[in-house]
Amino acid sequence: MSSTEPLRSTPPTGDVPSHFAPDQRTVDWVDGAVELVDQTALPAVERLLRLETVEDVVDAIQRLAVRGAPAIGVAGGLGVALAVRTLPEPGAAIRLLREARPTAVNLARAVDRVAAFMPDGPDAVLAEALAIRDEEIASSDSMAAYGIDTVRELCGPQPTMLTHCNTGGLATVTGGTALGVVFALHRAGLLGGVVASETRPLLQGARLTTWELARAGVPFRLAVDGAGSFLMARGEIDAVIIGADRICANGDVVNKIGSYAHALGAARAGIPFIVVAPESTVDVATASGADVEIEDRGGAEVSGFGVAAANPAFDVTPFDLVTAVVTDRRVVRFAAGQTWDDVPLGPLRSFS
Amino acid sequence: MSSTEPLRSTPPTGDVPSHFAPDQRTVDWVDGAVELVDQTALPAVERLLRLETVEDVVDAIQRLAVRGAPAIGVAGGLGVALAVRTLPEPGAAIRLLREARPTAVNLARAVDRVAAFMPDGPDAVLAEALAIRDEEIASSDSMAAYGIDTVRELCGPQPTMLTHCNTGGLATVTGGTALGVVFALHRAGLLGGVVASETRPLLQGARLTTWELARAGVPFRLAVDGAGSFLMARGEIDAVIIGADRICANGDVVNKIGSYAHALGAARAGIPFIVVAPESTVDVATASGADVEIEDRGGAEVSGFGVAAANPAFDVTPFDLVTAVVTDRRVVRFAAGQTWDDVPLGPLRSFS
Repeated sequence: MSSTEPLRSTPPTGDVPSHFAPDQRTVDWVDGAVELVDQTALPAVERLLRLETVEDVVDAIQRLAVRGAPAIGVAGGLGVALAVRTLPEPGAAIRLLREARPTAVNLARAVDRVAAFMPDGPDAVLAEALAIRDEEIASSDSMAAYGIDTVRELCGPQPTMLTHCNTGGLATVTGGTALGVVFALHRAGLLGGVVASETRPLLQGARLTTWELARAGVPFRLAVDGAGSFLMARGEIDAVIIGADRICANGDVVNKIGSYAHALGAARAGIPFIVVAPESTVDVATASGADVEIEDRGGAEVSGFGVAAANPAFDVTPFDLVTAVVTDRRVVRFAAGQTWDDVPLGPLRSFS
Repeated sequence: MSSTEPLRSTPPTGDVPSHFAPDQRTVDWVDGAVELVDQTALPAVERLLRLETVEDVVDAIQRLAVRGAPAIGVAGGLGVALAVRTLPEPGAAIRLLREARPTAVNLARAVDRVAAFMPDGPDAVLAEALAIRDEEIASSDSMAAYGIDTVRELCGPQPTMLTHCNTGGLATVTGGTALGVVFALHRAGLLGGVVASETRPLLQGARLTTWELARAGVPFRLAVDGAGSFLMARGEIDAVIIGADRICANGDVVNKIGSYAHALGAARAGIPFIVVAPESTVDVATASGADVEIEDRGGAEVSGFGVAAANPAFDVTPFDLVTAVVTDRRVVRFAAGQTWDDVPLGPLRSFS
């Protein structure tokens, strides 16, 4: 693995000097290798990693240099392409890649899908990996289109929106899920501003979302997670917009720890709570959030003081608190009594 | 200001080596100066600060070397005693002291009460300041007595209780408010355990409450603030118990940011939300939480990344979410429709 800073230099954009263009692909295939933005280095250092072996890709996934379910899937698919081009016997390396983060269902799904093309040769494998990349880009674009309509209908003019964790281009390839909708609103002149909650324990909101918002020139303020519901009660937030790691058959939303607390705040304040995630996140085989095993990531993330911790990485927001789920193919209003079956899949749309 | 480490060394107690005895007064008058445990240094360093000027006391309050409404009140009262002994014209210094932190009603009240004795000379001023100190010690003891009865009645046997921020001996003089009740339950064999929420941005829960719990041998786990309501939803918490910086005429509770989110979680989970604070925290002159100025402490506390922040230091929990307010003189059940007027003041009681 080599790193360059940056490989593809672009002029600063907006008020914040940045080496990366606003539409920079955060994970991509460039000149025979995987390149990705090193998320562990942000926001202090903007660094592109150039991954030339499968082992490099596995390492990047495991140490969270790339995170966000769609981005991990793309990195995994491209890693398979790398494996078949660099190894005479790629099977073992591909299995390691598939297991790099066992809880990320997108990873195994993408690896399997791309590896199925191995009998057709390296070019076919790469083409399938690039297809996944392009599908994620199209998916983000479509979520922006559905999302902007939903926000305009539900949230009033120029809303100030609270978001949690990171759901922007870093979590996908470009654009994003919830944060992609925010960017689309901003470009359309329809956004008041953003409050980013910092997202303890790993501070994805404080480190990554604020970096993306600053690059895009979106006005924002950072807040501790515990302040979200109070800012809603004071009338400083017009809507909450978050992503999802999994959405169950009944509409329960599994997302980064802290999401449920924001949902309770939104319900009490009478403001919309909007979830944006691709159809690939919908898991109708899981009845409800109670059926989802929630990973506990242990005490080291929470405290530098060596004490025991309860550290669930995700929580469950019950469907009755979810005003709308926006996917790349439809909008379902669970709090109003709709279910998946009530809303047929629509077309992929384009915002940009 | 000078610091000594420690001025009054005592043997380690319990499982955790500590220079401080369990009943160490965390703020006191010693040999003509104010001494207090430096809360900014804990848990890494146990250090007593010796404050010999009013400016030292103001500085200690503002940078949170001493925090917690009762402790701030005692420090403020002792600061007035220091002013009249060290300054020919103490008026300006006393006004600065009175304004050192706007949200805690105890500070201005203690300063005014002690300053009223200035015509009677320095000894009378000091006597009044020491009276406040002694009243807080007695108050903690009485809250433990009222609180233990309330928890036994409302929370079932051996409850696991979530607490927020720090409300132990560090926040008072000895004992504590909410955490004082927890310690009393533990000593009586009536406690299941504690979940301490870390309390961003300043981590009073992670730094101070865990330090106090460990010293007392109470079983506990630390959790990020955003996990509180989810742990309640999963049935891992039987009740929430917190302190208060101010309680309004209608029962609205002003407390550390993040308290309101826990109250929403408790209400949804159907578990008690108990507030423990002395009568000195009750402010019937303020109609509701909407009338309280909430201090915003700026962005530096929230982020090391130099971005704008919304950083309210406190929030307001509406009275309808407050199962019970336990003071040193009574228990009022606001969520059940009681008001201050419904419950006459009872006697100070003793637990210890």
